[in-house]
Amino acid sequence: MRQSDRKIAEGILFTDQYQLTMAQLYYRLGLHEKRVQFEHFFRDYPDYGAHKAGYCINAGLEWFLDWMREVHIREEDLTYLRSQTGRAGTRVFQDDFLDWLRRNGTFDAITLRAIPEGRVVHPQVPLTVVQGPLAIAQILETPLLNHLNYQILVATKAARIYDSGRGRLLLEFGLRRGQGKGANAGARAALIGGADFTSNVGVSHLLGYPPKGTHAHSMVQVFMALGEGELSAFRAYAEVYPDDCLLLVDTINTLESGVPNAIKVFEELRRKGHQPMGIRLDSGDLAHLSIQAAKMLDKAGFPDTLIVLSGDLDELIILQILTQIAEEAPRYGVDPDRLISRLAYGVGTRLITSWGHPALGGVYKLVAICDQGHWVPAIKISETPNKTPNPGHKQVWRVYDHRDKAIADLLSLDDEDPRQMDQIIFRHPSDQTRYRKLNRDTIAEIEPLLVTVLEEGRLVYDFPSIEEIRAQRKADVSRLDPGVKRLINPHIYHVSLTQRLWELKQELIASAN
Amino acid sequence: MRQSDRKIAEGILFTDQYQLTMAQLYYRLGLHEKRVQFEHFFRDYPDYGAHKAGYCINAGLEWFLDWMREVHIREEDLTYLRSQTGRAGTRVFQDDFLDWLRRNGTFDAITLRAIPEGRVVHPQVPLTVVQGPLAIAQILETPLLNHLNYQILVATKAARIYDSGRGRLLLEFGLRRGQGKGANAGARAALIGGADFTSNVGVSHLLGYPPKGTHAHSMVQVFMALGEGELSAFRAYAEVYPDDCLLLVDTINTLESGVPNAIKVFEELRRKGHQPMGIRLDSGDLAHLSIQAAKMLDKAGFPDTLIVLSGDLDELIILQILTQIAEEAPRYGVDPDRLISRLAYGVGTRLITSWGHPALGGVYKLVAICDQGHWVPAIKISETPNKTPNPGHKQVWRVYDHRDKAIADLLSLDDEDPRQMDQIIFRHPSDQTRYRKLNRDTIAEIEPLLVTVLEEGRLVYDFPSIEEIRAQRKADVSRLDPGVKRLINPHIYHVSLTQRLWELKQELIASAN
Repeated sequence: MRQSDRKIAEGILFTDQYQLTMAQLYYRLGLHEKRVQFEHFFRDYPDYGAHKAGYCINAGLEWFLDWMREVHIREEDLTYLRSQTGRAGTRVFQDDFLDWLRRNGTFDAITLRAIPEGRVVHPQVPLTVVQGPLAIAQILETPLLNHLNYQILVATKAARIYDSGRGRLLLEFGLRRGQGKGANAGARAALIGGADFTSNVGVSHLLGYPPKGTHAHSMVQVFMALGEGELSAFRAYAEVYPDDCLLLVDTINTLESGVPNAIKVFEELRRKGHQPMGIRLDSGDLAHLSIQAAKMLDKAGFPDTLIVLSGDLDELIILQILTQIAEEAPRYGVDPDRLISRLAYGVGTRLITSWGHPALGGVYKLVAICDQGHWVPAIKISETPNKTPNPGHKQVWRVYDHRDKAIADLLSLDDEDPRQMDQIIFRHPSDQTRYRKLNRDTIAEIEPLLVTVLEEGRLVYDFPSIEEIRAQRKADVSRLDPGVKRLINPHIYHVSLTQRLWELKQELIASAN
Repeated sequence: MRQSDRKIAEGILFTDQYQLTMAQLYYRLGLHEKRVQFEHFFRDYPDYGAHKAGYCINAGLEWFLDWMREVHIREEDLTYLRSQTGRAGTRVFQDDFLDWLRRNGTFDAITLRAIPEGRVVHPQVPLTVVQGPLAIAQILETPLLNHLNYQILVATKAARIYDSGRGRLLLEFGLRRGQGKGANAGARAALIGGADFTSNVGVSHLLGYPPKGTHAHSMVQVFMALGEGELSAFRAYAEVYPDDCLLLVDTINTLESGVPNAIKVFEELRRKGHQPMGIRLDSGDLAHLSIQAAKMLDKAGFPDTLIVLSGDLDELIILQILTQIAEEAPRYGVDPDRLISRLAYGVGTRLITSWGHPALGGVYKLVAICDQGHWVPAIKISETPNKTPNPGHKQVWRVYDHRDKAIADLLSLDDEDPRQMDQIIFRHPSDQTRYRKLNRDTIAEIEPLLVTVLEEGRLVYDFPSIEEIRAQRKADVSRLDPGVKRLINPHIYHVSLTQRLWELKQELIASAN
């Protein structure tokens, strides 16, 4: 795509056609400026096949807001819409609607509440709540889902991988395997969720992180093709980067060539007063090779150099590698815990694509319409009860027990405050037989989760830095029950409705049928 | 991301850090302007789990070339690189290298050959061949893989879905589930591979396609919340779009409410002289519902209105729906073939993410270095023999038999022309026991596949239109053996080496060990 075409394809027309045809329909009926409320939420955690998430990490808000605040309908967009014709050859969009769109084709009338980036989030919980004129809120659906769904997905995967690697250095390497420019959003989300650095130079620059990397197989190949060998390649690298010397050791043969050559070069660096950084293993049995490499490095007096593992890693493969190391390392006289503490992970494909579950099923559902000053709740019935959204203008609360663990997210009506209740009834969102009652004194803290970001288009929120978002994510994850964090078959976190919200939902379902 | 930040994150720094550190290393050694040859190829077809591709569709070239020809190193990029420091606090990039990069930080010295977009392609075959100065060709690796891998992946998935739907109308609906702005590349690739239209307004505008869509559940919900019902919503839609009236019938209850209400509105439209377009089913048992809906529409005198199916469809689910229809429709007096011929498919998530295999493992490998005017082949040994790339400066040929079916892709050395050979030996790329000999008279056609796109940065190729690319894809797919197109367990298409190329590969492997 040419740069000049981005204004067309990444501006306000970065949406689905039906949003525009519905907007015109609302215009025709005089409903276009009626205030409505849509909610963005997801119905299920990502399910990667052999393993499944028990929590998600919220992400994507700031870049979405950047988009919202910068785009507006342009004359060229209107000319294009004017040119569209339907089956009968007549125009799809009429002049009166397009004139209205010319005057109102921005998001300046939108009020937006959201759960901040970096927070742990769960299914059914409104992550973003949009209030605004019906026609405009409808056009916003597609870009909102596009911006938010993907970053949540990757931040969640990153948090799992970080946890699986026991918090050791995690590098994001996925630029080559992402979806075009979307890979930049993936790198940002990976940093939010758990990656310490990314190899993506542009995004590192933008977010103020130093980009990281080693070298490629091609560097060794160049030397080989010119009649030199791996050792010469390593020496050249050490010469140019004596204090950041991380060598990829599997171009020829990891244990017979790569590691011995790396050790030779590390010894030369040490004699010159430099501290070598480490090696990278990118193929083969990474558990076995890391044990053998650690043994060789230990013997040569390099007990602290990093061993970076890469090559189609994800949280389950890392878990398996660490399990194998725990079992196999002692047989070779290598202390498994010390080995694990010197490992780092370079994760590409499976992080940036959320392999196994490459799209979050986040949806954007109408929950209320303002009619004569009152929010009238809206419902959509589904044959699958847990797919029926929770109606109305709501608040979201997180409830902690005296262990300082989050025990439930509670959705309430807007005028309820569970902090004022002596006893709270937690209703299951769809199963009427499932509820529990908790007395206030068993609850240590009740925290509201939604913050106001836009007030009729005006930004009323200070976006936190990525470091602040990361700190929030760490704090939230540490307040999860360990069972919720299990990689496989996690404990199901409770998302509940207050008694009043539950009753409203039942009434609406009954009246729709 | 703010628009002003795109220049940073989507320009020449849209690459991995190690490309830049390797470039500086080559500069330091005086190798940076040595001409080299890299190849882009993939090793395996996408494997979606229960099913697997037997061919891929090439895509992405034009947008990649747009990027290559527009970006260059900017002063701000150089300032950023100058500011990077390593572990010891010293600068990563020195002034002399950055000065060279200031003068040479474009892709104006690159010669690029490629297989055109829309062509059927197979593993191990060079899809794009880059020749140029080592440092620059190295920096190009990441953006090349990013641009090409994803579009190939989606074009391939689209071709499978199109085939599975027996060539009926296929609509791409994935914008909300793609990776940020990368969803635009996905929409383009879907059109190349088999989608007839996309709901993505911006990309439709850019590529000259009318965007398509229906309406959302929210439209019916709005009417319900205002005290009206589904019928009023449908009537309003028909009023505004009388000649393009496609109604989503599952907001309340498909068979008891949606379809009967749609038929009422269709009857009203008919009385006014309009032809209704059809209905969309987005949930439930789509096979069963489409049979029942067809029966009701037939009875009401609408035997030709479309039935659009949507909701997490992919090639396997469509196959299953059609199988169920074939079995179940006769029991209800519905002719399955006629029903299938009125179906259309709206495919979102599983197409734009290539669900089951969300990243093509395309790689970019050094295959030759020009030393004193000669191309010296380069090799990278892998412990898995079929991962060892095919070395040297090569050509790619497609071989057809007298049935007009493609029977093999043949890689040769650059100075070989199999069209001149009386007998061709087809060697398996890694298994020395597997080869076959074909006499020229058993071969109907031998077609070279690579075309020159850039000659030292100068464009020497006319990019075909999307329609031309689609026609090429259809022609190529029709020349595949049906066994290769099977959704599950496809026949393995032959990719072979000429005898001379095979011998060269063996020599290089022997000398590297």
